[in-house]
Amino acid sequence: MDEKNAKKVYLFEEGSAKMRDVLGGKGCNLAEMTNLGLPIPPGLIITCQACNEYNALGKKFPKGLMEDVRKALLVVEQKAGKKFGDAKNPLLVSVRSGAPVSMPGMMDTVLNLGLNEATLKALVAQAGNERFAYDAYRRFINMFGDVVLGMEHKKFEEILSGKKKAKGVKLDTELDAADLKEVASKYKALVEKETGKKFPEDPMVQLELAIMAVFNSWDTPRAITYRKLNRLRNDMGTAVNVQAMVFGNMGNDSGTGVAFTRNPSTGENKLYGEYLMNAQGEDVVAGIRTPKPLIQLGKEMPAIYKQFAEIAKKLEGHYKDMQDMEFTIEKGKLWMLQTRSGKRTAAAAVKVAVDMEKEGRISKEEAIMRVQPEHIDKLLHRQIDPKAKVSPVAKGLNASPGAAVGKAVFTADDAAKAGNGGNGEKVILVSVETTPEDIHGMAASQGILTSRGGMTSHAAVVARGMGIPCVAGCDKLKVDVSKKTATVEGTNVVIKEGDVLTIDGTDGRVIIGEVPLVDPELTGDFEELLKWADAVSRMHVRANADTPKNALDARKFGAKGIGLCRTERMFNDPDRLPIVQEMILAGTPDARKAALAKLKPMQKSDFKGILAAMDGLPVIIRLLDPPLHEFLPKLEDLLVEVTKMSFHKTDDRVFNEKKKILDKVRELSEFNPMLGHRGCRLAIKYPEIYEMQTAAVFEAAAELRKEGRNPVPEVMIPLVGNVNELAILRKLVKKTADEVIAKTGVKFNYMIGTMIEIPRACLTADEVAQEADFFSYGTNDLTQTTLGFSRDDAEAKFLQLYIKEGILSDNPFEVLDFDGVGKLVEMGVRLGRKVKPNLEIGVCGETGGEPRSIEFYHKAGLNYVSCSKFRVPIARLAAAQATIREKQAGKKKEGFGDS
Amino acid sequence: MDEKNAKKVYLFEEGSAKMRDVLGGKGCNLAEMTNLGLPIPPGLIITCQACNEYNALGKKFPKGLMEDVRKALLVVEQKAGKKFGDAKNPLLVSVRSGAPVSMPGMMDTVLNLGLNEATLKALVAQAGNERFAYDAYRRFINMFGDVVLGMEHKKFEEILSGKKKAKGVKLDTELDAADLKEVASKYKALVEKETGKKFPEDPMVQLELAIMAVFNSWDTPRAITYRKLNRLRNDMGTAVNVQAMVFGNMGNDSGTGVAFTRNPSTGENKLYGEYLMNAQGEDVVAGIRTPKPLIQLGKEMPAIYKQFAEIAKKLEGHYKDMQDMEFTIEKGKLWMLQTRSGKRTAAAAVKVAVDMEKEGRISKEEAIMRVQPEHIDKLLHRQIDPKAKVSPVAKGLNASPGAAVGKAVFTADDAAKAGNGGNGEKVILVSVETTPEDIHGMAASQGILTSRGGMTSHAAVVARGMGIPCVAGCDKLKVDVSKKTATVEGTNVVIKEGDVLTIDGTDGRVIIGEVPLVDPELTGDFEELLKWADAVSRMHVRANADTPKNALDARKFGAKGIGLCRTERMFNDPDRLPIVQEMILAGTPDARKAALAKLKPMQKSDFKGILAAMDGLPVIIRLLDPPLHEFLPKLEDLLVEVTKMSFHKTDDRVFNEKKKILDKVRELSEFNPMLGHRGCRLAIKYPEIYEMQTAAVFEAAAELRKEGRNPVPEVMIPLVGNVNELAILRKLVKKTADEVIAKTGVKFNYMIGTMIEIPRACLTADEVAQEADFFSYGTNDLTQTTLGFSRDDAEAKFLQLYIKEGILSDNPFEVLDFDGVGKLVEMGVRLGRKVKPNLEIGVCGETGGEPRSIEFYHKAGLNYVSCSKFRVPIARLAAAQATIREKQAGKKKEGFGDS
Repeated sequence: MDEKNAKKVYLFEEGSAKMRDVLGGKGCNLAEMTNLGLPIPPGLIITCQACNEYNALGKKFPKGLMEDVRKALLVVEQKAGKKFGDAKNPLLVSVRSGAPVSMPGMMDTVLNLGLNEATLKALVAQAGNERFAYDAYRRFINMFGDVVLGMEHKKFEEILSGKKKAKGVKLDTELDAADLKEVASKYKALVEKETGKKFPEDPMVQLELAIMAVFNSWDTPRAITYRKLNRLRNDMGTAVNVQAMVFGNMGNDSGTGVAFTRNPSTGENKLYGEYLMNAQGEDVVAGIRTPKPLIQLGKEMPAIYKQFAEIAKKLEGHYKDMQDMEFTIEKGKLWMLQTRSGKRTAAAAVKVAVDMEKEGRISKEEAIMRVQPEHIDKLLHRQIDPKAKVSPVAKGLNASPGAAVGKAVFTADDAAKAGNGGNGEKVILVSVETTPEDIHGMAASQGILTSRGGMTSHAAVVARGMGIPCVAGCDKLKVDVSKKTATVEGTNVVIKEGDVLTIDGTDGRVIIGEVPLVDPELTGDFEELLKWADAVSRMHVRANADTPKNALDARKFGAKGIGLCRTERMFNDPDRLPIVQEMILAGTPDARKAALAKLKPMQKSDFKGILAAMDGLPVIIRLLDPPLHEFLPKLEDLLVEVTKMSFHKTDDRVFNEKKKILDKVRELSEFNPMLGHRGCRLAIKYPEIYEMQTAAVFEAAAELRKEGRNPVPEVMIPLVGNVNELAILRKLVKKTADEVIAKTGVKFNYMIGTMIEIPRACLTADEVAQEADFFSYGTNDLTQTTLGFSRDDAEAKFLQLYIKEGILSDNPFEVLDFDGVGKLVEMGVRLGRKVKPNLEIGVCGETGGEPRSIEFYHKAGLNYVSCSKFRVPIARLAAAQATIREKQAGKKKEGFGDS
Repeated sequence: MDEKNAKKVYLFEEGSAKMRDVLGGKGCNLAEMTNLGLPIPPGLIITCQACNEYNALGKKFPKGLMEDVRKALLVVEQKAGKKFGDAKNPLLVSVRSGAPVSMPGMMDTVLNLGLNEATLKALVAQAGNERFAYDAYRRFINMFGDVVLGMEHKKFEEILSGKKKAKGVKLDTELDAADLKEVASKYKALVEKETGKKFPEDPMVQLELAIMAVFNSWDTPRAITYRKLNRLRNDMGTAVNVQAMVFGNMGNDSGTGVAFTRNPSTGENKLYGEYLMNAQGEDVVAGIRTPKPLIQLGKEMPAIYKQFAEIAKKLEGHYKDMQDMEFTIEKGKLWMLQTRSGKRTAAAAVKVAVDMEKEGRISKEEAIMRVQPEHIDKLLHRQIDPKAKVSPVAKGLNASPGAAVGKAVFTADDAAKAGNGGNGEKVILVSVETTPEDIHGMAASQGILTSRGGMTSHAAVVARGMGIPCVAGCDKLKVDVSKKTATVEGTNVVIKEGDVLTIDGTDGRVIIGEVPLVDPELTGDFEELLKWADAVSRMHVRANADTPKNALDARKFGAKGIGLCRTERMFNDPDRLPIVQEMILAGTPDARKAALAKLKPMQKSDFKGILAAMDGLPVIIRLLDPPLHEFLPKLEDLLVEVTKMSFHKTDDRVFNEKKKILDKVRELSEFNPMLGHRGCRLAIKYPEIYEMQTAAVFEAAAELRKEGRNPVPEVMIPLVGNVNELAILRKLVKKTADEVIAKTGVKFNYMIGTMIEIPRACLTADEVAQEADFFSYGTNDLTQTTLGFSRDDAEAKFLQLYIKEGILSDNPFEVLDFDGVGKLVEMGVRLGRKVKPNLEIGVCGETGGEPRSIEFYHKAGLNYVSCSKFRVPIARLAAAQATIREKQAGKKKEGFGDS
């Protein structure tokens, strides 16, 4: 349809809920309710397309727009039985913006539009209440000045509080008609002074200016940035709703309220809301008078309550979702002002969805679609008791969800000494940032708090992986590790070692002292919903886990296997690190093998634990991946130490030992370790490492078999970029596994697969597949190489800037880069399955737990996603939704269905 | 054809030169010559396919093979007028291997096969020369024992030298018949002792064993490794040639020789060779007697010489290429034993090709195909005078071609002080390895010699780029920088500062003292051939150059533009580095701009020089690429310095200054700088850097225009992975350029393009192309990211191992990784041209100068390749050959042509 010739102004009765793109969210629901026969004050809607045209014309109304408005207004006048601008029986209107998608930063409401010196008098006469009329008038001038004329609200506020002060009163309600009249006249003087123009008396001019203000608010930098950040289309435009005013403040037979068809906090199927008699909507929000629970209305005005309850039931039945409604009672008559799908807590979302399915209102698939996967993250971690009163001293990034309480410690070693595995105290590790050497301290802590680093900083990533709450990049915190203190900038708050802290990784709050926490609850509804989800999903969900505890937890959260068990975390254990270092410093293969032999029983017991925890389910064990220098002290530290030693008197033996380590670190150090000697490249040079690990895996499995268990180990070779690497290592793993089988007499089927994390592996996936029983995408490294982003560096150095500037819409380490990395993922699937049509393909990078990415993986044809245990339920839900959306799209294509 | 039923034994007269895959190289030429009617001793060939079958059967002869051999032998006997194993008139044969491709490590020749006690007597009688016959016999036993029975040659040698010693003589020729008889009998005893079996007397058994030995030699580990390294197919197999013996040592009317149809060293069109009378082939090689130049034969045996010269002419005419021939004269009769395409020097290759075209023997395209591109590298650098006698003390990798003479210096600073730009002495920089900070010293040196690092080490890469000879990884050299000495391991040679050295980067030789060098000559023939090449090529060739001198040189070598002018090398200049550091340490954009303003006139004069040198040809200027920390001192060094300062008494101001730099370096330092904050990412954060550079480019161009020149600048944005980056920077460059145009009043057309060096840029090339006027593949970085190989780390840590193990066939930084990176290159071309069908696309990575890669780029549809100036002629030739090969393949497909 040619936009220019399209109808630009609709009466409520001309629209419907299906016209959201034309009439906006608010408008289409007003239209729908009007046509449902509900009591709606009459009104008109100017379309979103008119707004676009206005902006395209350089802030000019499309030709004929105001004529159309005037025409529609005639009908509204007729229905309301009043006339806009009439000196006897004036129609007053509200003007509100309403885009197809709810958007903060858009123009607020202007109420009481149409008032001027003439209509005001009529209002006084009609209401029989001078105070009411002047109150309406001064509110109108204030709102109009504020939102239409762009004046500072503060300046109006000064006049009002000046008057209250002069009169010695505190509340607006203590001002009488004369006071408000004076305030209104001072307001008008202010407008003239600030804008250089008299306050517009002509109601049509007022209306025109208000419509323009709504249109303009679509195009402010703030609104544009908001849309960019939220991936909303810029060409939606906003509608303008012009509606006859009704007043809840016309006396004790008037009132106003908001209500939900169900409890938005718990989901309970009971009308829920509050109201105030003799009040306007803003009075409910202002919180000066305490609103009453809706149930009271049943006693106060039983007929109205009954009528409202019926309307609520009708609306929920009509929309098949919990509704959030606004209403006004004007002189004993109920008016509905708004209905929309109600915002709810995660718990309520789950309960409402499941209940509605049981009530027969929606199908299981619809129920699944009603809950946002990201939303349920909140249900899976400990939280600060919602009832507790808290005053945060600072706020950082919500880097790893969940709340934690503990004593502040300032080094990883202190944390390890005092915390889990040490003295068993509950500690919070407070630090500028963390490094791989701090892992032991992080693991011993209840939570992590850093002053530097973003959502993908080391602390954030590791904490998420460990499921430990983390507040990162809390830059108001000045941490002094040497003094073991942290000062909150701009305050006199100093956190010292041992002080008790509470942090909330779900929203980034930092609180001094202990706050009560509540445990996550997997309610029956939640479980049920996820079972429905599993029944629908084409993909299944596994977890990334390196310890038996995490494996067990993941299983409880519904994981159908382990998609990634990293073996290097086992190497990092403080008991083992010296042996690992011995292995690295070994000068000969024999010395290396001797050190590896010491590590083997430890690895075997690790594997036994995990395989036992996942009994009957597959466990993909990734052989050693990081470069060896990661297990040695840092070059920087060694350099300083050795330089210092050369000044102090130091035992020659000690010095030489240190020097030897320095030399080895130098030898192993790399310009770009990410692209260096790691993964399968290590094993090509030192095959004995993978030999040891493989033997440990299969010996563990054999022992479990003998104990009557059913372990399902699968071996994964990391960082393969060339089929020849995989061919060599596959042979080695197979040989070792077969030796264990021969030695123990326990027979297995086992798979040997590879991580796909180098672009070349995707590009040559048809070759790689020939040596692989499965593929598992490592999207973390694949993103690093495909984009040329070093994850450790990019975040602070340019990634945040890129997102701010809109170069990237998302952090590609959180949401898969669909156009780049995604293309490689699809190519890998296509080429791999060309060779092996049933090749098992999954993903185990961090994006494996992110809903939009999961939808992509579903479409790409993957068999499963694997993510950290806490994201398993989210992933289950997202996988189901992806399946359902695909079905719906298929139906649309075929021409069936669609609302 | 079913291999098992194929003919397995051919008589010479049954074959032809086209049957190389069946009869091997030697055999097919013997067949061809036989059919040309030349005097060839009769013989038979066992096919390569028989060899494959033998190996497939587990080292067993295919059924009926020896029967076929016997049948063919009957014909040979008939032609020779002798009978194999006959006690009166015995036929003796030679047995030689001959694969389709010449391959060292294959079985050598066995001569005189068929001799035993009985046939020996007949030989004595027939030759009338007992000494000749016993000499033939003892040689046969030795060769048979050595190459067929696998005995050590040394043990035969001991018997022979024992006899000479006992007799008090030095030369074999001083032994008489009786002596040789005794030697032969001792040889046979040795064979019996070593093998536990008597020496085989039955000639058919001898033959069978010799054929087996040839077949076995195809499958030795050494041969397999050779084929792997040289990318030769494993399934070719080798043929066996069995040929009637003729003897050049039957008296003074006998002789033997080798000859070329033209001079293989200069290419001069004159028969060239040498011969010995009364000798066997091996005597010519042994070098005991000095062979005579072939021209002498014209006087000694004019008829034979004339006959040989005619045959040579005929063969060259027939094969249309210079031939390398072997002949024997037996009792006044000439026999041809071999002909093949003659090996020649690069200079000869060029001259022969051009001459043959002029003689009307071959077309221009054939002439172009006759010269190997890699081969002519030798013609483009100074060389050690081939006439000079040299004794190298060590050998390293031939890292950058050309020879150099100079005094040894051991630090970059010393080199800079003494060398070019300093005192003007000729110096050779001797070092363990080099780093980016040594650039000034490297530039001041005649050559670089390092003890560590491979073909892609910093020294090698930079030296090649600068065109400075370099011998790298010379591990016999123990360099002690603190003492300024280098010791040659295993010798008492010590190189001290100031000692004169000669190095040859073309073959890796290191020589003490000065050796005379000769300058490269671009002969008229060479120039002519390259002109023919340019006329044929679809792609053109540009050069990578950063200085006016290099640009001028490149132009002389035929470059049609500059494909990559790196601006960071200009930042590295010692005069400028302090200003660059000032810019980096700047705390505010204003301070940064102030430092940039100081750099601008310098950059402008650089650009002016290069644009002037390339007047009328395009110059692609890449804006700043490396991470900023590359311009600051190394973290390691600073750490040690600052730590030391804290022990010494140091001026606070100096300490704080140093500390400030350390802090900045820490702030800028990255885990993986290759994937870090560099390229366009720098400019997104600090747009003023690219602004300054762009202004400098266009102001330089405007000034040149005003001087009447025709500069053609093109601006290239590096490291783009997302079209949004390019869109932002394109706008910035355009704005700056247009400002210069407005200010100077000089109008330009200019292009703004991007380097394609991140996989994502290839994957989204359709998007990127929308903002790019041209693409230039940076295959160095694209290889790093696509393979996940850090170039600086990979070489020593695992790349050499990968090549040795056959995981990779080539170093992917030298030869494009066709299957991985190549796929991305093709995708980039396809997607880019989908959006802009005429998009100019080139390559400026190191592979841009490598012939096999150039062929790939041709096929991918690129417009040009760009490489270091010294490789420009190579690239021109390779580009032409790629075009010709494509044409030929097209013709083949159409069913025309093909020999």
